[in-house]
Amino acid sequence: MRRMQNVKGTFDYWGTEQAVRKKVQDTLARLFVLYDYGAMETPVLNEQSLLASKYAGGDEILKEMYQLRDQGNRSLALRYDLTIPFAKVTAMYPGLELPFKRYEIGKVFRDGPVKRGRLREFIQCDADAVGIAGPEAEAELMQLAVDAFRALDIGIVIRWNNRRFLGELLSRIGVTEDMQLSVMLTLDKWAKIGAAGVENELLEKGIPTAVSAAVMELLQRETASCSDLAAMYGMPDSPGTREVRALQSLIDQTGLGPWCVFDPFLSRGLSFYTGTVYEIFDSTGTFSSSLGGGGRYDSIIGKLVGRDDILYPAVGLSFGIESIMELLKERGLAVTEDAVVVVPIGNAAEASLLAAAKLRQAGIRTRIDWSGRKLKKSLAAASAKGTRFVLLIGEEEAAAGIVRLKDMAQATERDMSAAEAAALIQAARQSE
Amino acid sequence: MRRMQNVKGTFDYWGTEQAVRKKVQDTLARLFVLYDYGAMETPVLNEQSLLASKYAGGDEILKEMYQLRDQGNRSLALRYDLTIPFAKVTAMYPGLELPFKRYEIGKVFRDGPVKRGRLREFIQCDADAVGIAGPEAEAELMQLAVDAFRALDIGIVIRWNNRRFLGELLSRIGVTEDMQLSVMLTLDKWAKIGAAGVENELLEKGIPTAVSAAVMELLQRETASCSDLAAMYGMPDSPGTREVRALQSLIDQTGLGPWCVFDPFLSRGLSFYTGTVYEIFDSTGTFSSSLGGGGRYDSIIGKLVGRDDILYPAVGLSFGIESIMELLKERGLAVTEDAVVVVPIGNAAEASLLAAAKLRQAGIRTRIDWSGRKLKKSLAAASAKGTRFVLLIGEEEAAAGIVRLKDMAQATERDMSAAEAAALIQAARQSE
Repeated sequence: MRRMQNVKGTFDYWGTEQAVRKKVQDTLARLFVLYDYGAMETPVLNEQSLLASKYAGGDEILKEMYQLRDQGNRSLALRYDLTIPFAKVTAMYPGLELPFKRYEIGKVFRDGPVKRGRLREFIQCDADAVGIAGPEAEAELMQLAVDAFRALDIGIVIRWNNRRFLGELLSRIGVTEDMQLSVMLTLDKWAKIGAAGVENELLEKGIPTAVSAAVMELLQRETASCSDLAAMYGMPDSPGTREVRALQSLIDQTGLGPWCVFDPFLSRGLSFYTGTVYEIFDSTGTFSSSLGGGGRYDSIIGKLVGRDDILYPAVGLSFGIESIMELLKERGLAVTEDAVVVVPIGNAAEASLLAAAKLRQAGIRTRIDWSGRKLKKSLAAASAKGTRFVLLIGEEEAAAGIVRLKDMAQATERDMSAAEAAALIQAARQSE
Repeated sequence: MRRMQNVKGTFDYWGTEQAVRKKVQDTLARLFVLYDYGAMETPVLNEQSLLASKYAGGDEILKEMYQLRDQGNRSLALRYDLTIPFAKVTAMYPGLELPFKRYEIGKVFRDGPVKRGRLREFIQCDADAVGIAGPEAEAELMQLAVDAFRALDIGIVIRWNNRRFLGELLSRIGVTEDMQLSVMLTLDKWAKIGAAGVENELLEKGIPTAVSAAVMELLQRETASCSDLAAMYGMPDSPGTREVRALQSLIDQTGLGPWCVFDPFLSRGLSFYTGTVYEIFDSTGTFSSSLGGGGRYDSIIGKLVGRDDILYPAVGLSFGIESIMELLKERGLAVTEDAVVVVPIGNAAEASLLAAAKLRQAGIRTRIDWSGRKLKKSLAAASAKGTRFVLLIGEEEAAAGIVRLKDMAQATERDMSAAEAAALIQAARQSE
């Protein structure tokens, strides 16, 4: 037998797992549309030069870009995110009316190390709006996140911050502008590496001891509110403070408070955020990976498209489909397949196809058991899958134009028309 | 400004076009599940050796395979269809219970000539069943096709034939077995190249004149039934004839007759079909491309996985998403976006977010107009998009906890709560 295997870091999904993956994606797609993010589909294949632009993913991600050449020897690459394609569309079609809001759910590819369960290809699921400068865009995306996870039955907490605010804080304690991003990235690891780890990394990065001590002191104030920190560090009305306050006000007044926690040290890994950042976690705290996140990136699109004369204020929200699936798997995937099984006994193929058609017209998933095995085995297989309703159709039933409806839960059987069976099954399901 | 462009043969989709693409895919996915084809998702990246297997796509398609190497210098390729990945899964997981039915909707990639509007990456949409040897599998897929195109509101005709039957016919008139596939491929072009074209090609292929004349005579009988042809050519009970008759009987008895036309010369291009083949066309005949097709391929999976001891009888049905979209575009894409627009006037962001939340909870797509432009312009923009309902929220309305519902169709305005507006909009839509 030929040895068959997948490329490392790629997987096949089917059965219950894929049914749940699909349901998660369908749920998010439905919510995106309710929030007026329209569907978009962009190519996987891109010009290598677009994806390698210095304003694109950054060095780390470019190292992981799959590159290839076509028959015309053109240099191509596989997309590694959905943000660059979004920026590209914004740039390519100048007639596009702003604000423009779109979502895309699609595969992205990264040629990273396969150890530690990293995926070489995975689904990203992003909603982005370009053309809205104010915090109402962030508030609306936070509403969307709350609604989406409610629909997925996952309790969440949204930790949020503002890069401008954090930058101002760092300025006040003496972190020079050129070092701010680097210090933010270290602070972002606090939960992982602890206070000592943060201190070491700051010193390694060449932050002066006095400044590093001030950063460590700042870290003591993790539960302080934005206003307290702003007052403490003498910036009560700075641009960053005003931005945080404006979003906090929208959060409070739209009832998002219970889900949102201001975290003055959150910055998220990526360098391109310019204002609000947020990250979504499981509210029970038992699942440590982030379930999604996003933020404001006001300058990246303009830089990518190479023009300074148009402002492209942008905010995004990305759902971590693979993390969400991990969490749902830990909790036990529960999607009942809910198929009705039609079992032809003897020469009853036509009658079975006709009966199945009636059930399907009524919206009932229907499997015809074409195995030809003994009835007992067919029933055992149906029972093993948790099937409640089975339609038995022998030659006599076929001739009489009826079916025998077997209710496995109540251990009853009754002859009736296929239409009647469909109605009974629907009624039973509605009352379940 | 940076010049941005797509790789030739790749496209971006959004707005109405993408909404329709999505609707077509969702409709087909729903039908697949009703027919008990479960969702599957397989990787785009594959080992080059798997996709280049001699039992895979054939020379033509292998020339068009995108190849690349990862950082570990492994030889990879992008999938060019969904059939090989399906066969791979069947082979890789021996515990898989047969019959196994799955559908997959996903991108495939072909590095072909970009002229003539060919796509370099496009969506395939396949349902396949492995493990059912009898014609009931084909009949069920034909039912599925009829249901699916009915749901898409596209009238169709399914032309069908059987490769075994056609092979037997060709045998009877003297086409040697080694030439049969080649002659079938020529017959398949009949509609395109005409009788003279067929005759020339047969002679070019080295078919003896007498045999070629017999083939041309056979072509005269295009409207003959299977039984007539079988009687005429002395094969009234051949295996191929029996297969055609069995499927014809299922078609007739399950009411599929009006959609199905037996076409004794249809063979479809691909070499791997072993029995039934079918191709789906627009019933008005105005759209010439095939909208889908499929057939039985009983030996390919066994060969691909390299074992003769297990039978893998398989049947597939593939929907041509890109053709279906072309047809729908020719007829005019009609998907109304159906969004309600909330217009904040002055300082009413919170109230607008709250009102939008009420509408979205009721399942209504809602856009908040964050543009800050003059009310007149907002209303003109909404009107241009065919929006019927607009919610106006000024500072007074915000303070009073109400909204002004404007019905653009009836040119009326009335103050009410957001919940009341949601109920009114729902009621108006249901009565439309």
